[in-house]
Amino acid sequence: MRTFAIRLGGLALSLAALNGAETWREQGVIHLDKSPHAKLHSVPVNAVTMGNGFWAARRKAIFEKSIPGSLTMIEQSGVMDNFRRLTGKKDVPYRGPVFADSDIYKWIDAVGYKLQSVSDPELRATVDRLTDEIVAVQEPSGYLGTKFTGPELPNRLKTWTGHETYNLGHMLQGAISYYRATGDRKLLDASARYVNYLYEEFARQGKPLVCGHPELEMGAIELYRTTGDKRHLDLAAYLLNSDFHESLKLDRDTVWYSYTGIPFTERTRVEGHAVRSMYALSGATDYYLETGDPKYRETLEKIWKTLVSNSMYVTGGVGARAHQEAIGEAFELPNNAYGESCAAIGSLMWNWRMLAATGEARFTDVIERALYNGINSGVSLDGNLYCYQNPLEGWGLKTRNEWYYVACCPPNLERTIGALPGYLYSTSRDGVYVHLFHNSAMDWHLEDGTGLKLTQTTEYPWKDAVEIAVAPAKPSEFTMYVRIPGWSRSASVAVNGKPVSNARPGEYLAVRRRWQEGDKLTAKFDLGTQLITANPRLADDLGKLAVQRGPLIYCLEQHDQSEPLALLRLAVGRDPGKDFTPEFRSEFLGGVMVLRHKGQALEGDEPLYAPLGALAKSRTRSADLTLIPYYAWENRGAVPMKVWIPFATR
Amino acid sequence: MRTFAIRLGGLALSLAALNGAETWREQGVIHLDKSPHAKLHSVPVNAVTMGNGFWAARRKAIFEKSIPGSLTMIEQSGVMDNFRRLTGKKDVPYRGPVFADSDIYKWIDAVGYKLQSVSDPELRATVDRLTDEIVAVQEPSGYLGTKFTGPELPNRLKTWTGHETYNLGHMLQGAISYYRATGDRKLLDASARYVNYLYEEFARQGKPLVCGHPELEMGAIELYRTTGDKRHLDLAAYLLNSDFHESLKLDRDTVWYSYTGIPFTERTRVEGHAVRSMYALSGATDYYLETGDPKYRETLEKIWKTLVSNSMYVTGGVGARAHQEAIGEAFELPNNAYGESCAAIGSLMWNWRMLAATGEARFTDVIERALYNGINSGVSLDGNLYCYQNPLEGWGLKTRNEWYYVACCPPNLERTIGALPGYLYSTSRDGVYVHLFHNSAMDWHLEDGTGLKLTQTTEYPWKDAVEIAVAPAKPSEFTMYVRIPGWSRSASVAVNGKPVSNARPGEYLAVRRRWQEGDKLTAKFDLGTQLITANPRLADDLGKLAVQRGPLIYCLEQHDQSEPLALLRLAVGRDPGKDFTPEFRSEFLGGVMVLRHKGQALEGDEPLYAPLGALAKSRTRSADLTLIPYYAWENRGAVPMKVWIPFATR
Repeated sequence: MRTFAIRLGGLALSLAALNGAETWREQGVIHLDKSPHAKLHSVPVNAVTMGNGFWAARRKAIFEKSIPGSLTMIEQSGVMDNFRRLTGKKDVPYRGPVFADSDIYKWIDAVGYKLQSVSDPELRATVDRLTDEIVAVQEPSGYLGTKFTGPELPNRLKTWTGHETYNLGHMLQGAISYYRATGDRKLLDASARYVNYLYEEFARQGKPLVCGHPELEMGAIELYRTTGDKRHLDLAAYLLNSDFHESLKLDRDTVWYSYTGIPFTERTRVEGHAVRSMYALSGATDYYLETGDPKYRETLEKIWKTLVSNSMYVTGGVGARAHQEAIGEAFELPNNAYGESCAAIGSLMWNWRMLAATGEARFTDVIERALYNGINSGVSLDGNLYCYQNPLEGWGLKTRNEWYYVACCPPNLERTIGALPGYLYSTSRDGVYVHLFHNSAMDWHLEDGTGLKLTQTTEYPWKDAVEIAVAPAKPSEFTMYVRIPGWSRSASVAVNGKPVSNARPGEYLAVRRRWQEGDKLTAKFDLGTQLITANPRLADDLGKLAVQRGPLIYCLEQHDQSEPLALLRLAVGRDPGKDFTPEFRSEFLGGVMVLRHKGQALEGDEPLYAPLGALAKSRTRSADLTLIPYYAWENRGAVPMKVWIPFATR
Repeated sequence: MRTFAIRLGGLALSLAALNGAETWREQGVIHLDKSPHAKLHSVPVNAVTMGNGFWAARRKAIFEKSIPGSLTMIEQSGVMDNFRRLTGKKDVPYRGPVFADSDIYKWIDAVGYKLQSVSDPELRATVDRLTDEIVAVQEPSGYLGTKFTGPELPNRLKTWTGHETYNLGHMLQGAISYYRATGDRKLLDASARYVNYLYEEFARQGKPLVCGHPELEMGAIELYRTTGDKRHLDLAAYLLNSDFHESLKLDRDTVWYSYTGIPFTERTRVEGHAVRSMYALSGATDYYLETGDPKYRETLEKIWKTLVSNSMYVTGGVGARAHQEAIGEAFELPNNAYGESCAAIGSLMWNWRMLAATGEARFTDVIERALYNGINSGVSLDGNLYCYQNPLEGWGLKTRNEWYYVACCPPNLERTIGALPGYLYSTSRDGVYVHLFHNSAMDWHLEDGTGLKLTQTTEYPWKDAVEIAVAPAKPSEFTMYVRIPGWSRSASVAVNGKPVSNARPGEYLAVRRRWQEGDKLTAKFDLGTQLITANPRLADDLGKLAVQRGPLIYCLEQHDQSEPLALLRLAVGRDPGKDFTPEFRSEFLGGVMVLRHKGQALEGDEPLYAPLGALAKSRTRSADLTLIPYYAWENRGAVPMKVWIPFATR
C-alpha cells in the first residue's frame, strides 16, 4: 500500500519507493501498515512539518541544546568508552550502570527523530562514527553488550537484572529511528543479528529468557514490522507469553517489580516499577496489534482501567513511590510524587498503541495529558536541565539537573519531543485522524493512495480555535476524524463555515464527506479555566483543587506569589471559571498564558494541632495569586510549588 | 547536697556517698545538681522502680531482646572488629560508615541504663571486655577513633563529615551512663582524655573544630557535670559559639544541614538534618543550663516555637524529608514522613533540658507526645525490629527492619526506653515534679535532704486515674508539682480525697502543703477520645482528622478493617468523643485499648479527576472501623496504615 506514496520525495524517491527500496521514509513512530489489528496507521514524522507555536521553542531547545549537550554528558559518563575498551581504543574499566549502553541508543533514537524532521549532516556523521564504534563490538554470535564481558561474562544473559534485553530494545528503537531518517541499515542490521541470536539461542530452544526491564518486546516487534522476519515477532511472543518465574527463580516481588517473568495475560493492573510496567504494556499492545489475541485485548483493557481510575496523576505522570520507582497501590498518589519522566513517556507510548488498536479518543486524552504536563515538565525551557522526577508539589528542593547517573530520562525526553510530528495524525482505512492540535502541515496520503495535505492553523493550547485546510490531491470521499478533547466541556466544529453536529468531548468527531482542495474544517473548544477535584479516595487532595486550562495543568510557584505558599488558598465562587483571568505573557517562561486569581492568604495564628471544633474559622485576607503552567515550573530556581491547591468557597 | 542520699544503698553505700566516692549513683539522665540555671534536677534512674503497666513489656523486650540482639548485629557489622584491627587482633579492613564507632558507644549507653535499673553481671562483664578493646585503641594523645588511621589519617579531625566529634559525644554518653550504673571509670576516663586532647589541640589554640554532626556539645557538658573540669564545658562553648564557616569553608547548605559551624545564637529555627538539629539544640540547652546566657535562652525559645508551631508531627516525630533527612520548610509535614526515630529522641532530649531550665509543662507535653508515639513506634513489640523512619501513612512497604547499615536508631531507642525511669520525676528547690504517669516507686529525697518516697499507682494511659502515695521521711512542707497533660480537656486532683482547685491542662499543678507519710494525691484526666485537626497550613491533612486518646495517637491499619483503607472515612457527629468505643484487648498487640468506630466506606464509582461540581456527592455505606495505637503498627506485617483519616460529618 505504501508504494503509492509517490508524492513524497520527487520522482527519484517515488521510483525507489515503487521498488520497495525506500519504504524506510514512509514509516511512522511505529510502523503499522502491515499490522492486521491496527485500526489506525502512523503518519511518518517526515510527512508532518510543525510550524510556530507551543512546541516550536521546545523542539528548538531539544534539537539545539539537549541533543548536543546529551552527547557530551554521555561521553563524559563513559558510555562510549565502554565500547572503546572492548576494541582496544581505550584502556579503561567499565563505567556506569549495567544499562549504560542504552543511553547512546536512546540518544541515536532522538537523533533519528531529529533527522526525520530536519537535515543535519554533521550530526549524521557523528552517529555514523558512533555506530562504527558500536558495531565493532558485536560478537560473531550477534551478541552485543559492553558490560558482560571479562569478569562479568558468566552472568551474560543469565540475570534478570542484567538489562541486556533492555539495552537491545533501545538499540532496536534507536537503529529503527535512524534507519527511518536515513535509510542506513548498519545499526539496524547489527541489532537484528542480536535479535536473531537471542531467538536461536533462547526462544527456539525453549531456554528461559526474561526482560528484567521490559523494552525488548516493543523493540523486537518494531523490528518485525521493519524486516518482516517472523522470528522477531516470535521472540517478543516468547518473552510475553512464557512463564519463567520458576525456571529463573523469580520471586513474587521480582515478578511484581519487573512486570515480567509470567505470561502477560496473568496481569491484572499497572504495578511494580512504573517504567517497566508502561514499557511491558506497550510491548503487549504491539503484540496485540500484530496478533489480535483477544486475551491480550481484554487484559490490556482491564489494566488500562486501573491506570486511569486509580494510578495516574492529574499531570499524566505515573509512579508514586521513590522506593523501587514503583507505581504503588490503587489511589496511592501523594503529591510528592516520584513521577519519573520515563514513566509518563511510557504511558504515552502505551496509549499511542491502544489508540492505534481502537481509534478511541480516551487514549489520546491520556497522551495529551502526559505530553503537555508530566512529560513536558521533564526538560527545562532552555533544554539544558532534566527532571528524573516530576512531583506535583515542591518545597524548594532542586529537581532539574544537568544529568543523572541513571540517565534514562534525558534522551527519552529528547526522542519523544523529537518524534512529536508523528503523533499529530494517523490514517485509517476510511480516512484520517487529527489527534493533537498545533500549527503543522501534513503532506501524506489516504490509504487508497490519494495524496492528502492538511494544514493546521491554531494557537492551541493558548487559544480555542483550530483551522484545518483539507487538500486531497483529488476530490475524495473520506472521513476526517477530529478529536474533541475530553477536557473541553463543549466544542463546535464547522466545515466551510457550516456547523457539524455531535461534537462530543472525549470522542473523535467523524466528518465524512467528499473533501476537496479549499475545504476548511474549523473547531472551537472551551478554554475556560477549570477547577478539578480528585476522587475522594485520593486523600492527599481533599480540600484541594487543581487548575486546568485546555490540556494544561497549572501550578502555584512561590516566585509569583507575595505570600508563602503554605498560606495560600484558592477562593472559588459560583462559576469557578470566572475566577481566573488568563493573561498571555510572551516574554515570560518562553511565552505562557498565566492565570490571575483573587485568592486568600491565611493569617490566623492557630496551633499546629487542636481538637476538632476548638478553633475558630481561620482568618484570611485577600491575596493575588498567579498560576503558571505546571510544565514551566522550576525554570527560575527551586522554590515551593503546588499543583493541588487548598481552596475555600467565597 | 547529694551526700544526704543515705537511704539508697544501705550503710556501706551511704558511707561511701558521704565520702563523695559514690556520687555516680546519684546522677540522673542528665546530672543537674550543680547546674546553676537548672530549675529542675534529675532523679537517678536507680531511684525509680517502674512497675507493671504500659512500659513494662516494652522495657522487658528492650532488655531481653533488643540489647542482646543489637550486640550481635553490631559485631556482625564489624564495629568491634574496627577496633580489633588496630590492636592486631583482627586482620580486616575498616567496615561501616565513618560513625560506626558510635554504635557500640550507644549500645553501652543502653546497657548503662539497663544496669541502672537491674543487675546483670554477665552483661557488665561483656561491657568491661568491650571497653578493654576500645580503650586499647586510644592513642597517647588521647585521640580514639577507628576510621581515621591508615590511609584516612590525613583527614583526621579535618572534615565536617568525619563524625569524630559525633563518635566522641556518644562515647561520652555511653561512658557516663555506664559510670552511673557501675562506678567504673575506665571508659569515662578514656573519653575525658580525648576531650582534653581536643580542648588542648583546638579550643585552647583557637584551631577550627566543628561538630559536623552535633552530639559532642551534649557529651562534653555532661562530662563537665560529672568531672567538674571546666575545660569540658569550655570545649562545648568553643563548638557552640565559634564561627568556623569561613575557616572551614562550610557553605551555606552545609551550615544549614549540619546545624553547626556558626554561633548557635544566629539560628532562628529548627532546620537542616533533623537529628543534627535536635542534638545541637540539646547541647545548646545544656550550655544554657550551665551558663544562663540570656541570648541562648531567647534563641532556644524562638527556635522551640518553630518546632511546635510548624515542624512537628502529631506523633512528636520530627523531619519531613528523606532527602538529607531534613526537617523541611515551615508546615512541610507530608504524611509519608521520614520521621527518623533518632530525631524524635533528639526532641525528647531537647525538651527534657528545656523542662529542666523552666519547669514548664509545655515541654513535657512534647516529651510525652514523642515518647508514646513517634519514639515508641520505633521498636517492634517483640523488641527485634526497628524503624529508622516513622511515617504517618503506610502503603504496605516494610518499615521495620532487623538492622540498618546506618544503625543509629536501634541503640538510641534502647537507651531511651532504658532511661525511662529517669524521666518520670524531678526535684526542685521547693519540691518534686511528677512528669509522666506509670506504676512506679521513687525512693529519693527532697533537695533539703529529706527522704521522699512516691508510689504511683495507675493504669495510664489506658485509664484515667493516677494515685500517688507521698511518703516523706518526716512530715515536711514542700510542693508536689503534678503535670496536667495538655491533651486533657479537664482534670481533677485531690489530696486525701479533698479536691484541689486550678488543675489546668498543659501546666503543673502546684500542691504545696505539709506532706506526711500516708498522704495520697489522686488525679483524674479526661480520657475521652479526641479528634484532632491540623492547622489549615498543613495542606495534606485537610479534610482529615487524627484520633487521640490520652497521650496516644491512633491509626487505622489495614489488618483490622474489612475494606481497603483508601475507601474508609470517619463519620463524626456532634460530640465526636462519643463516636468511639474504647475496648481493651489484653491479648492483642501486647495489650492495647482499641477504638471501635462506625465510619463510612466510599462506594461510588467516581472518575479519578473531574471538574468541580461535576460529581454527585460520593455514595457511602456504613463500615466498622477499628483503630489501634500508632506505636503498635506494622507488628503484623506491612499493610496500609493511616494516622490522618478522611472524615465526613454525620
